[in-house]
Amino acid sequence: MPQNAYQKLEALFARLLRIEDAVAILQWDGAVMMPDGAAVSRAEEVATLKGLHHKMLAAPSVAGLICKANHLELDDWQRANLGEMSRQWIHAHAVPARLIEALARATSACEMVWRDARPRGDFKAVRKPFEKVLALTREAGQAKAEPLGVTPYEALMDLYEPEAREDRIEALFADLEPFIAQSLPQALERQGEPPPSLQGKVSQARQKELGRHLMGVIGFDFSKGRLDESAHPFSGGTPSDVRITTRYDEADPLKSLMGVAHETGHALYEMNLPKDWRHQPVGRARGMALHESQSLIVEMQACRSRAFATFLAPKLAESLGLDWSARELRKRLARVAPGFIRVDADELTYSAHVILRFRLERAMIRGDLKVADLPDAWNQCMTRLLGITPPSPREGCLQDIHWYDGAIGYFPSYTLGALSAAQIFQAAEKSLPALRRNLEEGDFKPLMGWLGENIHGQGCKGSTDEILQRATGQPLSTAPFKAHIRRRYLNGEMAE
Amino acid sequence: MPQNAYQKLEALFARLLRIEDAVAILQWDGAVMMPDGAAVSRAEEVATLKGLHHKMLAAPSVAGLICKANHLELDDWQRANLGEMSRQWIHAHAVPARLIEALARATSACEMVWRDARPRGDFKAVRKPFEKVLALTREAGQAKAEPLGVTPYEALMDLYEPEAREDRIEALFADLEPFIAQSLPQALERQGEPPPSLQGKVSQARQKELGRHLMGVIGFDFSKGRLDESAHPFSGGTPSDVRITTRYDEADPLKSLMGVAHETGHALYEMNLPKDWRHQPVGRARGMALHESQSLIVEMQACRSRAFATFLAPKLAESLGLDWSARELRKRLARVAPGFIRVDADELTYSAHVILRFRLERAMIRGDLKVADLPDAWNQCMTRLLGITPPSPREGCLQDIHWYDGAIGYFPSYTLGALSAAQIFQAAEKSLPALRRNLEEGDFKPLMGWLGENIHGQGCKGSTDEILQRATGQPLSTAPFKAHIRRRYLNGEMAE
Repeated sequence: MPQNAYQKLEALFARLLRIEDAVAILQWDGAVMMPDGAAVSRAEEVATLKGLHHKMLAAPSVAGLICKANHLELDDWQRANLGEMSRQWIHAHAVPARLIEALARATSACEMVWRDARPRGDFKAVRKPFEKVLALTREAGQAKAEPLGVTPYEALMDLYEPEAREDRIEALFADLEPFIAQSLPQALERQGEPPPSLQGKVSQARQKELGRHLMGVIGFDFSKGRLDESAHPFSGGTPSDVRITTRYDEADPLKSLMGVAHETGHALYEMNLPKDWRHQPVGRARGMALHESQSLIVEMQACRSRAFATFLAPKLAESLGLDWSARELRKRLARVAPGFIRVDADELTYSAHVILRFRLERAMIRGDLKVADLPDAWNQCMTRLLGITPPSPREGCLQDIHWYDGAIGYFPSYTLGALSAAQIFQAAEKSLPALRRNLEEGDFKPLMGWLGENIHGQGCKGSTDEILQRATGQPLSTAPFKAHIRRRYLNGEMAE
Repeated sequence: MPQNAYQKLEALFARLLRIEDAVAILQWDGAVMMPDGAAVSRAEEVATLKGLHHKMLAAPSVAGLICKANHLELDDWQRANLGEMSRQWIHAHAVPARLIEALARATSACEMVWRDARPRGDFKAVRKPFEKVLALTREAGQAKAEPLGVTPYEALMDLYEPEAREDRIEALFADLEPFIAQSLPQALERQGEPPPSLQGKVSQARQKELGRHLMGVIGFDFSKGRLDESAHPFSGGTPSDVRITTRYDEADPLKSLMGVAHETGHALYEMNLPKDWRHQPVGRARGMALHESQSLIVEMQACRSRAFATFLAPKLAESLGLDWSARELRKRLARVAPGFIRVDADELTYSAHVILRFRLERAMIRGDLKVADLPDAWNQCMTRLLGITPPSPREGCLQDIHWYDGAIGYFPSYTLGALSAAQIFQAAEKSLPALRRNLEEGDFKPLMGWLGENIHGQGCKGSTDEILQRATGQPLSTAPFKAHIRRRYLNGEMAE
């Protein structure tokens, strides 16, 4: 039986995580299995569970227990666990129920308008409902800023990437911006004409079979997860039941294959979280930056590498009848091109999209950018960063759902993840001198073992910075990412 | 904003039903989608949600609100709703948390032993854990008996079929028993040799396609539900998102087709429940007897009829290449045979299985039958009812999971459902003189319209008896069922 204050908190948070896990499965189902007509009901079911969760978490008695537990003798894991509990309590308690409900209603309304307006590129239609979302999000950021001791924008980021700091990110991004501007034309020139499109089609069934094979090669445990299809690929479920999705393009099988590799990277992070702490906050993934780093290590660092192309080319020939040499496959796997749409971007230009969103959303939260001015600001920023100007908001500020759904503060994680991926992979390579040869042989065990020990198995024991420092011996920097881009896109042909 | 006592209760029960619906989807997922390795986690997620539900429902404040609401002026639906709330509160409050937990542990342990012991027919292995389950179930029955004002066995039945009474059921079953004994040899003689087995196989894909077509013909709305596969076919999900399953036998496509018809009958009950009361107790299905009646009306009364065989035969030829005349199909759809296994039984012998379980489980709850004596009692009862004796407990008292999982009091609903199905269909036929012709044309709209109005749309407005009386003009009796069996199996060939 419990119990001192810490033990009582463990019992409470175990229940809270069960509710979160139940919600995760319901949301997976909503995206993958649910018939359309059940959407309203499902939203209510999820809202009810989230409401219960919030009530249990934000209760004043929880703060009392946290205070008491702080005075107890705890080991490192317990101490880190208590820190996470405290952070979650602040996030839940800082925002009054009235504001949570208002935000839920406003985002739901705005999202509906956005779905309708995006195909027409009709920003005017979205403006008013988004102003409402923005006003409430700013209010939430302000409410959390004080108890967290950070700026409102940092308080919003904290939900996705704990302890993220504006200045630090701005410094990294300011360093990255000219690098992208200089590298892009060089990379474009070096890579030459695009390879010819595929003749004929590759059936979904064969793509799926190869995708599952690739997941197995990387280390996915099918007794604890699934692969399915959805309109927007994602990694969901729970650490005990990891569910990733993809979508198939019969004219381009590399799309779903690399998508599957990406989501499998996310999945293995979840699957390899510390088992002893599975149902405590400290046993969950650290944040979105490290999460994205794990997907990018698998997709960008490993699966699009020259080494892995050596392994993959004969598989593609055998399974899909695509008779490409390793060299030809490698060319197809690593190309860059400026484009309007973030989710279609390559690893070099992707960060430009993120820099743009970081600057604009921060300006909106600070009150320096009005919603009405967003389309122009977007276009100017895009022109400066990538030299292209969206013809309409459809290819500009209306292109994805995040802001209109209230997810402000999320975007920086993508590029923090890309920088971390390069830095972590570089460290792994130092520890594992045979790593490139392993990849040539399709052997992910050494890499996954190293990541399991240095990243996955750390859960939330330490901040993102601390985990990164322990794993790589240095704080986050742009150097490894730049080195990676140079080797892959700028050096003599077929380097890396 | 709420609110008087009744309105507060409505708000509470709306939340409770959302939790129940979330659990229903998680359980569907567990049976259909979940990877095996997630079973333990899923059990914890469901247990957590059920625990929260129970705590919210059994709170003493709920009783206070029910008492106050009883004095308010309410309309018929509200009054019936309050009655259901009260019944649910009694069920939740009567059983102490300690007993609920002990039952959960005991059934979980017993079920595991049963899974292992059944293939070997090893009743000895199951005896001790089942004695534990039985003792705790009796305790739960006794705890509920007083507040419900019924016997302990009735209290257990009440969870599945509210207001079911032992004497009434015994009288119906005592009337049915000799009827089955007399009819079975006559039906066997009349139907002659079984038709030849299928030559070749029918692929799952084609069976599935025809199954979906049949669901559409009956009236299933695919924007609010799904068809999937599972080891044990069932109807699950929520009224807004009805999910039925089947399994395919490539050597016998009629099995899954009639299974799909059966589950579609369940599904349409859920889909057509009163929309205005969807998220209140009164808006849910009345009980398991009426639920089973709706599946049996669709499967037994409609889809296995001579009339529907006329419609179905050409579809089978076209879709599956089965070149049977309507007459030959009809013979295959309506045959009887004594057998050991309930779930494989036809509509005549099925009730013998139910009578056996009713008598034995009631005797166990009353303390008149010891667990150690169950296999012998089972065999004697089976020999008397159907003239066959199971060679081992595998084909006898170990054949299904219900008892070992703590589901005692559930079985009678199956035969109450079969009797209700015959009686309701008879009444529908009186109101809809063209019903048989509709079925010949594959037109379910008139039947489903009538059922929607008289059964589905009634929700829990009135007891099962009251709904049946209103729909058919008489209390439940065996006469319509007997008449149905006589027409289908005992009269001149091809009658009905």
